[in-house]
Amino acid sequence: MTVDVPVPTIISQNVLIEPDAVRILDRRVFPFEKSWVTCRNHEDVAKAIEDMVTQSSGPLFAAAGGMTLAARDADRLSTLEQRREFMAAAGHRLVNTRKTNNQIRDVVAELLAVATATLDAGEPLAETVERAALAAGDRYLDRSRKLGEHAAELIPDGATVLTHCWAESYITQTMAAVLRSGKRVDAICTETRPYLQGARLTSESLAEMGVPTRLITDGMAAHLMSRGEITRFVTAADRITMDGHVVNKIGTLQIAISAHAFDVPFVALVHAPDAQAPSADDVEMEDRDGDEVLHCLGRRTASHRVTGIYPAFDITPPRYVRTVVTDRGRFSPQDLHSYYAGEQA
Amino acid sequence: MTVDVPVPTIISQNVLIEPDAVRILDRRVFPFEKSWVTCRNHEDVAKAIEDMVTQSSGPLFAAAGGMTLAARDADRLSTLEQRREFMAAAGHRLVNTRKTNNQIRDVVAELLAVATATLDAGEPLAETVERAALAAGDRYLDRSRKLGEHAAELIPDGATVLTHCWAESYITQTMAAVLRSGKRVDAICTETRPYLQGARLTSESLAEMGVPTRLITDGMAAHLMSRGEITRFVTAADRITMDGHVVNKIGTLQIAISAHAFDVPFVALVHAPDAQAPSADDVEMEDRDGDEVLHCLGRRTASHRVTGIYPAFDITPPRYVRTVVTDRGRFSPQDLHSYYAGEQA
Repeated sequence: MTVDVPVPTIISQNVLIEPDAVRILDRRVFPFEKSWVTCRNHEDVAKAIEDMVTQSSGPLFAAAGGMTLAARDADRLSTLEQRREFMAAAGHRLVNTRKTNNQIRDVVAELLAVATATLDAGEPLAETVERAALAAGDRYLDRSRKLGEHAAELIPDGATVLTHCWAESYITQTMAAVLRSGKRVDAICTETRPYLQGARLTSESLAEMGVPTRLITDGMAAHLMSRGEITRFVTAADRITMDGHVVNKIGTLQIAISAHAFDVPFVALVHAPDAQAPSADDVEMEDRDGDEVLHCLGRRTASHRVTGIYPAFDITPPRYVRTVVTDRGRFSPQDLHSYYAGEQA
Repeated sequence: MTVDVPVPTIISQNVLIEPDAVRILDRRVFPFEKSWVTCRNHEDVAKAIEDMVTQSSGPLFAAAGGMTLAARDADRLSTLEQRREFMAAAGHRLVNTRKTNNQIRDVVAELLAVATATLDAGEPLAETVERAALAAGDRYLDRSRKLGEHAAELIPDGATVLTHCWAESYITQTMAAVLRSGKRVDAICTETRPYLQGARLTSESLAEMGVPTRLITDGMAAHLMSRGEITRFVTAADRITMDGHVVNKIGTLQIAISAHAFDVPFVALVHAPDAQAPSADDVEMEDRDGDEVLHCLGRRTASHRVTGIYPAFDITPPRYVRTVVTDRGRFSPQDLHSYYAGEQA
């Protein structure tokens, strides 16, 4: 049995590449407000990424948009050398916004290669880079659909899926595939302090798809697991190293350890393990301003006598990870080199 | 070396038994506002406890105040039998407000016994019950001081102590004893959603004592432990069963499991294990209104498409608990019967 499942069009609608600007849906206030941040150049885009206007794969799309704006600006420069340097600097600026996730790095590298080839051919950049940026976005969504199909097979009928933070197309495509196959599923989201991605983004999107969705605070997961109320713990990964370390939103590690203690499989979703990161030491971990931990939706939550600590990500060792699901199928965290086996042959 | 340590006078100042009413410091808005809820009778007190006006040992003091108000009202009734029934009903009402912690149960039982003896002697209740209520409060603080002395010995010089929720006099007396002994210590508090007891109450109190205090969200503890940044995990317990299960604020279990994984000792503080609770099945676990999880400081945080789940407490099995500290000293969670050994002899 298959059913039609409306998947929220969360990807293409989050970042718009328009003739005068790149517009980014402001996820800091979504779903209470639907407002857009207008970026006139790649520097505006870089600041928006740093300021958490968009998260999950949003920065990938935003960076692609930023490179498109840079290409338009580069076309107005006099010499080939100036254009080359301008594009390289724009790419450098965007890659340095948030370094834990490798998606910005990869899309910028791809678009810089396109730009170089275009400049070598003596052609203007704008149109070619924009086309490549849009193609990268389409490919991203296509890979997420494949990942979703592979992940859905791990979710049994009647499952309660716990998810942390905002896994965007990874989780929506997974849930869509589960629903298409006719299996029943419901979701529990952690609220994901301090930015509340789970309370605002994941909850909204999963419920919109028709998945019965409940919310907990970030400290409740182990308790529900101890009562047998969680079937699978499923998150995206910002990065998975070749030796199976899952780098993801802070809080993932704590839940993954509890999942292991209560024998709940932790399923980590990523298009591909990062061939450039053999192990966790190769991943730059982002620390954000601790002040963000002292507030909720802009309002002070904490005593004025204290300071905050805000590590943005944590690292879950492979022993706490049951399965890594990619666009090429499911892998043990101990066997991620198999992902690239076909390429190496 | 010993030093003078100002311990915030958090106990006696939280619940005031006055001639016309019991006044309870409203911890839902502290420290941003210092306002008091006025309770004219025991029913007002019961509602205040249910509505989380006060937490930690606050309900014990409030219940003692509620019994004092009931005693004043009972004195105005015509017959001995009416007074007896009125006191029993008041006690029943107060005990049923929040049942996971046994402090209300115990102080109500004590004051009911005083009331019965007073009625048997043909004397008016008000003054006797009030005196017994105040004595119970003094005894509580004295036991916390002893507990703090025993707990402090487990905290090495230079330690970073992680604590969850609001352990009130247990943690403040522990920290005071640490500081008096000349050891350096700093604290990290979880914010403790949804009520932010850690962000508002614990942070404020520890920092006020001169302990350098930092704040994290409820999902960050394991990450800090994985980096070796936590020396001890110390919380109060709402209840510890005779077989070593620690019942405490939701979120404790998750951190305790992580502490075990990273070999960080979890120290649970309670005046005494509950002789009336052989095991976890004997503890009634409170579930609160899930709507509270969808808000922060009264403001909606979550998508309107979802519902919340709010189990108020969780149960940490003894295998994740290193030491139980009581007013009579330190015990293994596997050896809590020793607490009562002297009495049984």
